Amino acid sequence: MEKIKIVIAGPRGRMGSEAVKLAYETPGFELMAVLDRKNNGLTLGEIGHYPLTEVPVYSDIEECLQAVNADVLVDLTVPESGMHHARTALVHNVRPVIGTTGFTPEDLEELKELSSEKGIGCIIAPNFAIGAVLMMKFAKMAAKYFDDVEIIEMHHDRKLDAPSGTAIKTAQLITEERQPKKQGHPEEKETLPGARGADLEGMRIHSVRLPGLVAHQEVLFGSDGQTLKIRHDSYNRASFMSGVKAAVETVMKIDSFVYGLENIME
Amino acid sequence: MEKIKIVIAGPRGRMGSEAVKLAYETPGFELMAVLDRKNNGLTLGEIGHYPLTEVPVYSDIEECLQAVNADVLVDLTVPESGMHHARTALVHNVRPVIGTTGFTPEDLEELKELSSEKGIGCIIAPNFAIGAVLMMKFAKMAAKYFDDVEIIEMHHDRKLDAPSGTAIKTAQLITEERQPKKQGHPEEKETLPGARGADLEGMRIHSVRLPGLVAHQEVLFGSDGQTLKIRHDSYNRASFMSGVKAAVETVMKIDSFVYGLENIME
Amino acid sequence: MEKIKIVIAGPRGRMGSEAVKLAYETPGFELMAVLDRKNNGLTLGEIGHYPLTEVPVYSDIEECLQAVNADVLVDLTVPESGMHHARTALVHNVRPVIGTTGFTPEDLEELKELSSEKGIGCIIAPNFAIGAVLMMKFAKMAAKYFDDVEIIEMHHDRKLDAPSGTAIKTAQLITEERQPKKQGHPEEKETLPGARGADLEGMRIHSVRLPGLVAHQEVLFGSDGQTLKIRHDSYNRASFMSGVKAAVETVMKIDSFVYGLENIME
Amino acid sequence: MEKIKIVIAGPRGRMGSEAVKLAYETPGFELMAVLDRKNNGLTLGEIGHYPLTEVPVYSDIEECLQAVNADVLVDLTVPESGMHHARTALVHNVRPVIGTTGFTPEDLEELKELSSEKGIGCIIAPNFAIGAVLMMKFAKMAAKYFDDVEIIEMHHDRKLDAPSGTAIKTAQLITEERQPKKQGHPEEKETLPGARGADLEGMRIHSVRLPGLVAHQEVLFGSDGQTLKIRHDSYNRASFMSGVKAAVETVMKIDSFVYGLENIME
Repeated sequence: MEKIKIVIAGPRGRMGSEAVKLAYETPGFELMAVLDRKNNGLTLGEIGHYPLTEVPVYSDIEECLQAVNADVLVDLTVPESGMHHARTALVHNVRPVIGTTGFTPEDLEELKELSSEKGIGCIIAPNFAIGAVLMMKFAKMAAKYFDDVEIIEMHHDRKLDAPSGTAIKTAQLITEERQPKKQGHPEEKETLPGARGADLEGMRIHSVRLPGLVAHQEVLFGSDGQTLKIRHDSYNRASFMSGVKAAVETVMKIDSFVYGLENIME
Repeated sequence: MEKIKIVIAGPRGRMGSEAVKLAYETPGFELMAVLDRKNNGLTLGEIGHYPLTEVPVYSDIEECLQAVNADVLVDLTVPESGMHHARTALVHNVRPVIGTTGFTPEDLEELKELSSEKGIGCIIAPNFAIGAVLMMKFAKMAAKYFDDVEIIEMHHDRKLDAPSGTAIKTAQLITEERQPKKQGHPEEKETLPGARGADLEGMRIHSVRLPGLVAHQEVLFGSDGQTLKIRHDSYNRASFMSGVKAAVETVMKIDSFVYGLENIME
Repeated sequence: MEKIKIVIAGPRGRMGSEAVKLAYETPGFELMAVLDRKNNGLTLGEIGHYPLTEVPVYSDIEECLQAVNADVLVDLTVPESGMHHARTALVHNVRPVIGTTGFTPEDLEELKELSSEKGIGCIIAPNFAIGAVLMMKFAKMAAKYFDDVEIIEMHHDRKLDAPSGTAIKTAQLITEERQPKKQGHPEEKETLPGARGADLEGMRIHSVRLPGLVAHQEVLFGSDGQTLKIRHDSYNRASFMSGVKAAVETVMKIDSFVYGLENIME
Repeated sequence: MEKIKIVIAGPRGRMGSEAVKLAYETPGFELMAVLDRKNNGLTLGEIGHYPLTEVPVYSDIEECLQAVNADVLVDLTVPESGMHHARTALVHNVRPVIGTTGFTPEDLEELKELSSEKGIGCIIAPNFAIGAVLMMKFAKMAAKYFDDVEIIEMHHDRKLDAPSGTAIKTAQLITEERQPKKQGHPEEKETLPGARGADLEGMRIHSVRLPGLVAHQEVLFGSDGQTLKIRHDSYNRASFMSGVKAAVETVMKIDSFVYGLENIME
């Protein structure tokens, strides 16, 4: 099978440097070039701690995509560049996999049309943590069969907001599958206020904060005589790379626009 | 919304008596009659500990389905009766939900044709534990995105076989989504034999047996920087009833034959 | 080793009938008689579903302890009888293991003196769930080394009060080992009120209520780079019997009065 | 309260640099000097990334302890230096907290005598992971009350040996509290070999290896109707610092020799 030829934008960033590693360690991937706003004309071996002395660095996307025969552009830069990179890639028949946020509805509409016109895939994914995306997807599916669910999210104690964004998004996905239901005993009483957690349409969310923890979430469903738990533990940012890998492989097989990693998972 | 009219076969059995409770406690269900090989002519109140003095008991399925206007027949009897009950129900335009095992491929083919001919749903489900069915379904889905997985099943110490049937079935479903992969370090060594568990196409399965445990299983996926765990805990046989409920609701909406609860879950 | 000779009070109760099973199934135990306010003169085989046709039933404790050569009286009756039974046993040089509540400080003082006078052990234990007692004991010990801890207790959704009594008692034991500490980020914000749970001297307690759950509690400690979790799962009342067993064995070895199972655990 | 005055040996090592952070971030601690085989005469600010321009670096322990008024020497260097540092510290009336291995029985005997002669504390601790030490201590305690236990240890898939050293040590501690017992059903059968894990005196140990995992262990006890789980999760080496902190605080309060962190935990 032919290798997928990849250009990575943002190779010195925290996510981007992991993606570079992914690209040269994955047998089916081939890293053709990187896009960096600095260091034009150098090689990747010269700007990072890689033995990649033959991978060229470009600072201009047009120049890069003309010089290099690429299948996929992986963008892990900043919201300001995402749209420009996605549009330019499509124009050059290169499939974008974009991990930045900040797209307007108009942006998405434009990319959808361009993708359809060109007949090639395009994936915009604000969250590449594939385990977290699966947890949310499974939670939504399980909510069809279990009327009762509570969410327990656990993070380090430097986190300011409670509940976490992922917990709220999980709860919202669950509400799409059920009528609001006040859970627990109708006459239950908190002898210490807050014990039963936050209420989102009758569902309860609990936020644990402790030093030592990283980022963890449990979605716990219960019905007569059984419980079903879905738990995701994220330890570090390498966890995003399986999502990038899945997106790169998928964008080669589709001929249309997709927003959100959950929509490429069957 | 109109109630779903139900006949239950096997009302004195362990599963059947739970189903009777389900049928009269669920607002959208109405229990019309029960099929019992004994006690013809009595009422359910007379043969069980229920306040159901108006629900008639029949010993003959033909007689029952002619006398009673039913939508669904729920059969929780024995393998010997399952096929006869399913066929007779379909003939009377009653949708079968059958929880027995022992169907031959020819049986299934016959029911499929009859169901299609009549244009009404028919569900055969050897396992109604909806949480376990979802766990297996999610495990199969997650296996597309995680190359590495181990299964830890935990049961009371009176269980004879290890691994459990559910663990083996889960592993087999996962193999459908991946190439065999020898997991762990290529040169790993067991200083105590058996430490790494059983091997099924490179996947590892661990069986814990302790007094106090009931029936539990964890499917643990790992990739760089993250883990995803799906855990089912079954405490008693009431756990089967949410599966029966889902099957009854679904069989009303479909017009064809389904084998296995996992196939009615989207 | 000689067997421990036991009399059980309350053999038809839910706890008492488990204790009868314990007494005749444990190799080192010998069941001599039972105390029952009814059925005087019958045998245990006649009043319960046991093959114990030679174990006599007494309704009067004086008569029983005179007729039978016993080492230990296990009382699993009601608060009204506990004190009378404990006192009478000591007077007859029989060591009491009492599982009822309702003792006044004066009662405890009297038993303490009587126990000391006779030079034989006496154990009063309002809670025989040895796993829960150990969880609390370990939590208290760990609190010396971890400044941060949260408690997550999980019960069926018919429970009225939150947090559970065990969670509150656990938290109180922890406060004995630490200065009050407001945990979490000093500026943390609940975007949904209650997310951070109940506050007990800066410690957070979370109460989960779901159908299917029985009685479970996690005590989760965190410090830099690590967490330590102690979890107890209680499935049914058989769980109290290991506590009864430990108390019977211990009461034979001590020559003084003990209140609370935690105080016989080293 | 007066601060504890500390000298740290090995300030540039992985553990040592964490200890330096601990020493200047803990309110009750004061970092007086560091011992480094290089960089004599410089300051800690000059050799590490700390704002500690006034903490002197010494390469000779004699010189250091004469120049500096220290209460405690924390040694996180290599086995070759541990004994020399411990002995020299005691001679100078400085209390040693030594984290290296490799002590011979004769070494330990000598330190014990010296410590007793001087009347000051001395702690040798081959393992500073306080959570792991507590887990083992609790497991040993619980084994008195639960006859059945299984250990599930989980590590990243680059680990070569199974079971882990901690799992084996935990099992050995448990054997000190119980008679060998073949757990599980007497006639249980492995339909896939290895499913029931490794056998250590009848106890079962299971080793899970997955990418994403770091270092985790569960000790699961079961008896009728209940389970008790003790779990330790270690995410990174900062986890050792709470053990160092406890050792420093304890060594000030004792006047004798202690080997092993578990022996300073009540």
